Amino acid sequence: MPEATPGPVVHDAEYYVLFDQHGDSWELEDKQLDAKLAELEEKFGAKPNVVHIMWDDMAFGDAGIPALNKIRGFDTPNCNRMAEEGALFTRYYTEAACTPSRAAVLTGRYAVRSGMYNVAFPIEAAGLGSEEVTMANVLSGAGYATAFYGKWHLGDIEESYPTNQGFDETLFTPYNQVLSLWNRIGEGANAVQGVIRPMLVDDPYEVDKTFGPSDWIMSMEGTKGGEMLEWKSSSLEDYNQIDPECEKRSIEFIRRNAAEKKPFYLAYWPLLTAFIPNPRKQTVSRGILGDGFQSVDAFIGQVMDELTELGIAENTVVVCHADNGPMVHNPPPGLGMAETVFRGGKSDYWEGGIRVAALAWWPGMIEPGTIIGDMFHEMDLYPTFARLAGATGLIPTDRIIDGIDQTAVLVNGDTSGRRDYNFVYTGNILAASIKGRFKRVWVGDHPGLPGSAFYDLYNDPREVNPALVPFLGTSSSFTTMRKRHEIWKQKYPDRPTKRGAPFTGIANAREETKALSNPPVDLEKLPFDPLEYMNFELPWDGLDAD
Amino acid sequence: MPEATPGPVVHDAEYYVLFDQHGDSWELEDKQLDAKLAELEEKFGAKPNVVHIMWDDMAFGDAGIPALNKIRGFDTPNCNRMAEEGALFTRYYTEAACTPSRAAVLTGRYAVRSGMYNVAFPIEAAGLGSEEVTMANVLSGAGYATAFYGKWHLGDIEESYPTNQGFDETLFTPYNQVLSLWNRIGEGANAVQGVIRPMLVDDPYEVDKTFGPSDWIMSMEGTKGGEMLEWKSSSLEDYNQIDPECEKRSIEFIRRNAAEKKPFYLAYWPLLTAFIPNPRKQTVSRGILGDGFQSVDAFIGQVMDELTELGIAENTVVVCHADNGPMVHNPPPGLGMAETVFRGGKSDYWEGGIRVAALAWWPGMIEPGTIIGDMFHEMDLYPTFARLAGATGLIPTDRIIDGIDQTAVLVNGDTSGRRDYNFVYTGNILAASIKGRFKRVWVGDHPGLPGSAFYDLYNDPREVNPALVPFLGTSSSFTTMRKRHEIWKQKYPDRPTKRGAPFTGIANAREETKALSNPPVDLEKLPFDPLEYMNFELPWDGLDAD
Repeated sequence: MPEATPGPVVHDAEYYVLFDQHGDSWELEDKQLDAKLAELEEKFGAKPNVVHIMWDDMAFGDAGIPALNKIRGFDTPNCNRMAEEGALFTRYYTEAACTPSRAAVLTGRYAVRSGMYNVAFPIEAAGLGSEEVTMANVLSGAGYATAFYGKWHLGDIEESYPTNQGFDETLFTPYNQVLSLWNRIGEGANAVQGVIRPMLVDDPYEVDKTFGPSDWIMSMEGTKGGEMLEWKSSSLEDYNQIDPECEKRSIEFIRRNAAEKKPFYLAYWPLLTAFIPNPRKQTVSRGILGDGFQSVDAFIGQVMDELTELGIAENTVVVCHADNGPMVHNPPPGLGMAETVFRGGKSDYWEGGIRVAALAWWPGMIEPGTIIGDMFHEMDLYPTFARLAGATGLIPTDRIIDGIDQTAVLVNGDTSGRRDYNFVYTGNILAASIKGRFKRVWVGDHPGLPGSAFYDLYNDPREVNPALVPFLGTSSSFTTMRKRHEIWKQKYPDRPTKRGAPFTGIANAREETKALSNPPVDLEKLPFDPLEYMNFELPWDGLDAD
Repeated sequence: MPEATPGPVVHDAEYYVLFDQHGDSWELEDKQLDAKLAELEEKFGAKPNVVHIMWDDMAFGDAGIPALNKIRGFDTPNCNRMAEEGALFTRYYTEAACTPSRAAVLTGRYAVRSGMYNVAFPIEAAGLGSEEVTMANVLSGAGYATAFYGKWHLGDIEESYPTNQGFDETLFTPYNQVLSLWNRIGEGANAVQGVIRPMLVDDPYEVDKTFGPSDWIMSMEGTKGGEMLEWKSSSLEDYNQIDPECEKRSIEFIRRNAAEKKPFYLAYWPLLTAFIPNPRKQTVSRGILGDGFQSVDAFIGQVMDELTELGIAENTVVVCHADNGPMVHNPPPGLGMAETVFRGGKSDYWEGGIRVAALAWWPGMIEPGTIIGDMFHEMDLYPTFARLAGATGLIPTDRIIDGIDQTAVLVNGDTSGRRDYNFVYTGNILAASIKGRFKRVWVGDHPGLPGSAFYDLYNDPREVNPALVPFLGTSSSFTTMRKRHEIWKQKYPDRPTKRGAPFTGIANAREETKALSNPPVDLEKLPFDPLEYMNFELPWDGLDAD
């Protein structure tokens, strides 16, 4: 984390167009919000706590709406309660895939800006760079206790570990749920081919013994400034222990800080499910998503109850959402990763890839039963939480922060939004731009202008009728908006992906782990510099597994 | 309408399979329901009134769910109120297109059984036959006052007029909204080609002057046993007066019968919209569906208020629903006929064609906030309303009644359903069978068994992943179910479409109308019997406009 830089927060270009039109009224509204927050701080003697629960792969509508529960064959009673007592978002955007989404929400920036636009798999030898200033850095700086539990998926290099990114304590997975398949059961279910070295038979024709990962780490635990340790093994049994252990530690973290009257920031990002079809059916749907979500939903209820019992519910904002749309392409074995309202899923620039189930709960501050139609991006949590923590001054000012302070939406409700745009990246490619109800897709082979298509998201929410003539009036406006976005990048360029040796700095590293950290061949014998090809940026390949 | 026949109601074969398993508990439940209804009758001194409002072309979710309102850019505050105070259906099925849907709901039978599987256009020379026993016949027989207002769309032959089908009074349209385009504005909007004779220029090459309709009737009014009259003209101005006039007469009908303490059955089926894009934008969506629905929604609120003020709300069941899914294929000019949760729209056997927005309201009898996940078919209203009216004995017993008495669902709520199956016809073709969560599509070129595909509606609500291996266990069960359905048809065959001379029996018939009723050429000069080709059944052509 770099030193704090003075000056105002730098927004993306589009924001200034809005600010010019609404700045005066926003500043007035901000004063009222500040007064309300001061009143709250007076009452509790501390800045509000932040609980951020983010799970995988769920479309808008799959949680929080009882009528849609009936259609999907699984219930989300605690999310529904959260919607009744708090707010349901109908236009909550994320990045389109796991790693980018996690990078964006933690940095308040589109993932492309931090080079985190690839989905990480073993062995990535890359991750979130130390140049980034995460939400944990900002809130730590404001005196918050910070904890990360669950699916991190932000790289396997040492600087990317949560405790090197501002968190005080952690139990985390560097990769994703696919690893739950890398065992005999996954192989038996034909869910995974034996490409992983421990699963391979001896092949008499194999010449290169270094192709493919020979080992991996499923999860690690550690504390800031303390040791980082591999946690248990990479077996399926231990995989299944990660979420329950993270839930336990999350509750302990809340209780401990409540007792110490210390403001806290908890990020719990559950694994949600194993990709091994689960014989324990918990819902009538029998689907991998619905069954997996039952425990997440129950935990959300537990958190609300716990905060209430501890007497800090009114001083804690809880925000829950999925990290991207459902895995409808190349889905894991087991049923139920499905589209409903929106078209597409994880990896898509369609609404179904980026418009997710999302809820917020903050008794006394969020009006019960609020339904928020305003555009909200997961990146907005960064400046919003910073503002609640009185830590806006700790946001770095030497880079673009895409997140917008949307405290007004939480406190003043529907139609208080300050965002009407979104740039939708898939990998490092700008695939679509959204402005209000309109969406222009820049890529693909669609009817319309060559390489371009226009949609009206109210009248064609599934983006199936690219309309040209009715929307040509927006064409040059979209082009102008994109130009502003691109030209601002010339001043504040995207960072390349941060790369390095994987899995260094692990106190209990096994011999296999140490081998992963070191080059598998003698570098002296290569006629080229391995750092050069490690840092080489390939064209984005669109790999859509999370 | 034929004489009443003694004996029990004949159901479709599948029902008996369910009854064998649940008959005892249903009979017990029915006794409890009867006691509850008797109590209500005691209180009000009359059987409950029935208000049935059915509009065009709306997907599930477009009315009654506030969060989806945000996504579609239009509000349905009165439907939302209806859901809060009454019941929202999440699995309410209809036929896939207008004419079949209207025939099914009125006769309690799949449209294919009455020959009403074609969508009527000028000049159809066909319609609902006098052999059918409609809901109006049944409720009239039980002493109800009956009124039909709005879009009838059940033919242009005299026996099909509402007053010849059991209704005491009517103002109705024999066809659909397409006629709102048959004028200079529609032509100017390129929405309709000049195929209608009054719109044609003189064509020196035209040899046959009888091809295409030369005139039509937009709307008619009349009373049972009284005169039938053309109402106003077929101009766009007069078209736009139909819904307001029907609303006015509907309210008058309610007030009049409330004053006379006579039980009543009101069917108001609004036109909803003109297909002429409306410059009066009522919603942010600016869509033809959302804008058009504003007045329907407002009227629904007016009805609830009126019933409450008259003190008969607790003795009136109000059921509102769309007649089929949105017109996503060949949509009318103007935006907004769109899919959301389900795939497909009007004319499709996909859920999007047949699973619609539906609500029920009956203070004191329906638990507020009920969400009904049970399968319910619009045909079920027929025996259900008959039961409420104490008129089950008037249901004909010489034919299959596909509707199932679902009073239990209304009064006892979610999971009280008595239907787990549906046969989905498009035209006279059985396109799909549904049993519980499973759906088997019989037609089309899908992966799976040749000519067949299986879907799990919980885990794949949009029917995009036809699964074979996981569902092969249901294959022979589906085949058996279909066999039972088909073999029962051998005993109770489908009726052919009823045909005849159009627009007879109109007291104020214009010369042009009289010409429509008579053959346009000298029948003596034809070398074949015109009745023979009039009655000839063409293969169904799948014309999907309503």
